[in-house]
Amino acid sequence: MASGTPAWAGTFLFALDLAGTFVFALSGAISGVEHRLDIFGVLVLSFAAATAGGIARDVLIGATPPAAFTDWRYLFGSMLAGLLTFFWYRKIKRLRNPVLVLDAAGLSLFAVVGTLKALAFHLGPVAAALFGMLTGIGGGMLRDLLVAEVPVVLRSELYAVAALAGSAVVVIGVQFDLPVPEVAVAGAVLCFTLRYLAIRRGWNLPQAEPDDPVT
Amino acid sequence: MASGTPAWAGTFLFALDLAGTFVFALSGAISGVEHRLDIFGVLVLSFAAATAGGIARDVLIGATPPAAFTDWRYLFGSMLAGLLTFFWYRKIKRLRNPVLVLDAAGLSLFAVVGTLKALAFHLGPVAAALFGMLTGIGGGMLRDLLVAEVPVVLRSELYAVAALAGSAVVVIGVQFDLPVPEVAVAGAVLCFTLRYLAIRRGWNLPQAEPDDPVT
Amino acid sequence: MASGTPAWAGTFLFALDLAGTFVFALSGAISGVEHRLDIFGVLVLSFAAATAGGIARDVLIGATPPAAFTDWRYLFGSMLAGLLTFFWYRKIKRLRNPVLVLDAAGLSLFAVVGTLKALAFHLGPVAAALFGMLTGIGGGMLRDLLVAEVPVVLRSELYAVAALAGSAVVVIGVQFDLPVPEVAVAGAVLCFTLRYLAIRRGWNLPQAEPDDPVT
Repeated sequence: MASGTPAWAGTFLFALDLAGTFVFALSGAISGVEHRLDIFGVLVLSFAAATAGGIARDVLIGATPPAAFTDWRYLFGSMLAGLLTFFWYRKIKRLRNPVLVLDAAGLSLFAVVGTLKALAFHLGPVAAALFGMLTGIGGGMLRDLLVAEVPVVLRSELYAVAALAGSAVVVIGVQFDLPVPEVAVAGAVLCFTLRYLAIRRGWNLPQAEPDDPVT
Repeated sequence: MASGTPAWAGTFLFALDLAGTFVFALSGAISGVEHRLDIFGVLVLSFAAATAGGIARDVLIGATPPAAFTDWRYLFGSMLAGLLTFFWYRKIKRLRNPVLVLDAAGLSLFAVVGTLKALAFHLGPVAAALFGMLTGIGGGMLRDLLVAEVPVVLRSELYAVAALAGSAVVVIGVQFDLPVPEVAVAGAVLCFTLRYLAIRRGWNLPQAEPDDPVT
Repeated sequence: MASGTPAWAGTFLFALDLAGTFVFALSGAISGVEHRLDIFGVLVLSFAAATAGGIARDVLIGATPPAAFTDWRYLFGSMLAGLLTFFWYRKIKRLRNPVLVLDAAGLSLFAVVGTLKALAFHLGPVAAALFGMLTGIGGGMLRDLLVAEVPVVLRSELYAVAALAGSAVVVIGVQFDLPVPEVAVAGAVLCFTLRYLAIRRGWNLPQAEPDDPVT
């Protein structure tokens, strides 16, 4: 990422990026199977869940074509996750807990990488933090919208706020000229910790209580 | 907007733009509360309703990053509207009539500004009018899609057509080299009047009557 | 398309492109009428079904503004199909079989043209094939999403795979430096044949069978 990054960090990031893509794609594929899509639909949901956040970010900041279409890892990781889920759905479903942990890792990584990319494209600090969050949550939102459901991230759990907190750390660190690798790790650790605690302790954001709810 | 615009016009436009953003955001926040989203979801719907039309326009004409991410007013106005609605939902709901009037004002302003921006990016007259309309109605469409509903603008009321009429006036005026501020005011007044009359008199567009409706 | 294309080929492509746009728009308008949209909603669905695939492709590869807004044929063909369907819905509905055949022709053409455009914008072979498929299926996906339904292409029938096969033929042919017009015809014929056979024989892709389906 940064030019002064040691080689092991690059390999580590590569592995995390692949893991994040793969796990996000799993969540898309599981939703596709549960909604009885055909195999094409399951693969589309895998790809959408893994890449829509980054694609939205790239389109909005003008970085076209998006990395999801120019880097084979995203397509490959998504397809692999989609096929595994399609053929071994029950086994994948049983891995719920490790998948949740890897999903938190993917969220952290996507938020940090998305923030850094937005900063590299000269977005302002507030916008860069928003784009980091969008990179993390956009895939899950499109995954839900494609099966005509309200995105779960809008309804419950502390998920987007964890991504936003991690992104904010990156933005603030870069504003103060701190070294990028350390700042990136700090942001990712904060996001992961918040998300992990939210899962373990069932943290939720306050929800509105209208007199006349639609649903 | 135009270089020869007097200073008071700039202030007036600033106020209108802020009011439009704020009122569109209110409509998003109200929908979010009614669908029992959490506070993050309510804020996302506020921002989406206020900015998605302009964001779609900017992405489609190649003006990235969209103004919604580079101008703090949009985020600030949306968040303010979202928080007020989240905490004082009943009071905001009771303001239905002034909100409808301000919404008509926002629609008019967004349609005119969107048309002028598309013309400035060298879009043709028909496309520019379409983009003006999209700027006005896009936010409400995404607001409804995010809660998995058919956009109300596709179903009932004279709303998009008012925006299109205002945009058309701007396009025609600019084609005939009339002064931009006067043309912009004429377009906005036409849009506002049509929309206001539609609300007061319950005007609707004709609706199809299939033998075999889905819903 | 290619510089060495004879004049009749250009006219032929023009006719096919118009027919594809028109027939895709019919499918959008029919869905709009069935969901009891008003006339504006029906026209929006016509335009969306006819152009969303190409618009998504153009935005993603950075070819803004999309051709759908700069070439009057798309808007004109969509509006014509929408108005005909709105006023003569029963007659249009009865044309189901010719519409299905023309839809297969439109899919073939859009897939091939989309692939060639992506290649012209220096996308890699895999991405270009994906963009060809997206050009073919994107309109139908947005048509379904706008009425809050799961896109039919994700659920059943061999549709996207036919587009992908046609796109793949184009990509492979261009990689081997074969002449573009012949390669384009071969891709379109393969896509059309697959899609036609799928309709006639009721071919479907395998569907997942979860224990706990959502729907």
